[in-house]
Amino acid sequence: MGKHTKTAGWGTPPEEALRVTVTGPIAAFDPSSTPGFTGDKDSGTALLSERGAVLADLQELLYANGRSGDHRSVLLVLQGMDTAGKGGIVRHVGGLVDPQGLTIRGFGKPTPEELSHDFLWRIHRALPPGGRIGIFDRSHYEDVLPVRVHNLIPKSEWEKRYEMINQFERDLVASGTTIIKCAMVVSKAEQKARLAERLERPDKHWKYNPGDIDERGFWDDYLEAYQAIFDRCDSDAAPWFLIPSDRKWFARLSICELLIHALKGLDLDWPKADFDVEAEKKRVAALTE
Amino acid sequence: MGKHTKTAGWGTPPEEALRVTVTGPIAAFDPSSTPGFTGDKDSGTALLSERGAVLADLQELLYANGRSGDHRSVLLVLQGMDTAGKGGIVRHVGGLVDPQGLTIRGFGKPTPEELSHDFLWRIHRALPPGGRIGIFDRSHYEDVLPVRVHNLIPKSEWEKRYEMINQFERDLVASGTTIIKCAMVVSKAEQKARLAERLERPDKHWKYNPGDIDERGFWDDYLEAYQAIFDRCDSDAAPWFLIPSDRKWFARLSICELLIHALKGLDLDWPKADFDVEAEKKRVAALTE
Repeated sequence: MGKHTKTAGWGTPPEEALRVTVTGPIAAFDPSSTPGFTGDKDSGTALLSERGAVLADLQELLYANGRSGDHRSVLLVLQGMDTAGKGGIVRHVGGLVDPQGLTIRGFGKPTPEELSHDFLWRIHRALPPGGRIGIFDRSHYEDVLPVRVHNLIPKSEWEKRYEMINQFERDLVASGTTIIKCAMVVSKAEQKARLAERLERPDKHWKYNPGDIDERGFWDDYLEAYQAIFDRCDSDAAPWFLIPSDRKWFARLSICELLIHALKGLDLDWPKADFDVEAEKKRVAALTE
Repeated sequence: MGKHTKTAGWGTPPEEALRVTVTGPIAAFDPSSTPGFTGDKDSGTALLSERGAVLADLQELLYANGRSGDHRSVLLVLQGMDTAGKGGIVRHVGGLVDPQGLTIRGFGKPTPEELSHDFLWRIHRALPPGGRIGIFDRSHYEDVLPVRVHNLIPKSEWEKRYEMINQFERDLVASGTTIIKCAMVVSKAEQKARLAERLERPDKHWKYNPGDIDERGFWDDYLEAYQAIFDRCDSDAAPWFLIPSDRKWFARLSICELLIHALKGLDLDWPKADFDVEAEKKRVAALTE
C-alpha cells in the first residue's frame, strides 16, 4: 500500500481511495459514490473491458507459476448486504479470467458437519491452491456478521473470533496468500429497487429470498457489525475495502483494479524452463510428421 | 440424438456429424476437417460469440434450477493428445459462462492416496453438483488410455474397466447427469508445430513437457486405445464425439454447440417461486428507504 502508482482513470488508485481507513465509517458512506475515479459510467465500462485483459494476463502468469511450484495465491473475500452484487462480481469480474485459474466457494448457512467443527474448518478446506485466484462469496466473516447481529452464539464466544480471524489471516499471508477483502455496500433505496425487480421478473424469482426483508430490519445492527470487522480486522497485510455498489459498473471496475494491484504486487515473471530449451528444440525439429 | 434440429451454420448438427459412429475410425479421421459446418473461420468465430450468449443463458437456467433443488447437471469430458487444446476449451468455452456455475477438475497422474482407492474414486468426488456444468480435463478414460498403452497394470485388469466405466456412466445418467465426451484430435504435423511454438516463446515454456515427445512415440498405440473406448464406451446416453482440433476455432465452436444441445435437451424453465409473489411485492412496496 501507499505506493502512488498511476492507475488510468483514477485520481487516487482504488487500493487507497477505497481502503476502510480512508473511506471513513460505513454508516456515513455513500453507496452511489465513485471514490478516486475520475470518469463516468461509459468510460468506466470501457475501462473495465480494457483492464479485464490486463487481469487475464496477470492471472495466466500466476497460474503458470503455480504449475511450476510457486505456492502463492490470491484470495478475494466478498461480503455485503443481500442484493449488493456479490454474485455479479463472481460472474463479471471472475468471468474476465480463465475459469481454470479460479477457485470459487460460497458459504451459506453451515451444514451440521461444518457446525461440528470450529468455524474456520470449512474455510481452510476451501482455500485456493498455489497459482489460483480464490473467490469467497461470503466467508469466515459471516461468523461475526449474522452470528453477531442475531447472537447465534453468546457474545463471549463471537468476541474471541476477531482475534482468531486475525491470526488465521496472518498465517495465510505468511504462507503466500495475498488477501483482498471487499465489503459491498448498497443503499436501502437501491436494495428495495433490486428486490422489487427480482419480484417483477419471473426469470429472477429464484434469486428472491423472503428472508432478505427480515434481514433488512437489522440494517443498523449490520452496519455496526461491519464497522467492527473494519476496526478490528483490517491490516496492511489483509486490508478491507468498502465497495460502493449502487452502481454495478463501479463495483466491478474497482474490484478488477484491486485484483490487478494484488497480482502486480507479486512481481511475477514467466517461470524458467526446467529443461534444456535448445536440446528440446532439436528433438522437436527432428520429429517426423 | 437423431432429431434433426436446424443449427445455424451447420448442414448436419455437430451432435450428429461428430458422433464417433458417424465420423468413422479415428485412424482415418482428418483433424483439420470441419464436419457438418458450412462456414469458414471468420463465420465460425463470429458464430461462436453469438452462440456463447445462448450458452450463457442456458447455463444460468441450469444454475437457477439447481439452486431450486433440481439435481440435474451436465458433464463435459475432455480427452485428447497432448497439445490438442483441452485447456483452451476450458478457457474459451468455459469462459463463455458464469464461472460460479462451473466445476472444473483436472486429472493428472494419480496421487498415492488416489491409487489406494479404485480408479473411479477420484472421479466420483469430482462430479458436478446439481445445477452445474462440470468439465473434466482428462478423466476416468486415462485409466484405459495411457494405462493401456503402457500396460501400467495387467491387461486382464484394464480390460475390465470398460464395462466398469459403462456401469458408472449409466448410473450417472440415471441420477440426472447429461454426459458429453469429446476426444480432441490433432494431426502429428500440428502437434509438432504447437510443441515448437511452446519452445520458441518463453511465455509458453511452462506448457512444454519433454515427456510429450516420448508419448508421441506411442501415437498409433494411442489411436488404438482411443478406438477401443469409442467401440466399447459410446452409447446414446453417454456419447463420444471426435473433435477435429487442428483448427482451434472449430473445436471451440463444436463443443459450445454440443453443450447447448445438451442443455436444451433438459427442457428447462425458470423455477417457480416457492413463495407468494404478490404478498412479497406488497412487503417490498411497504419498505421505507
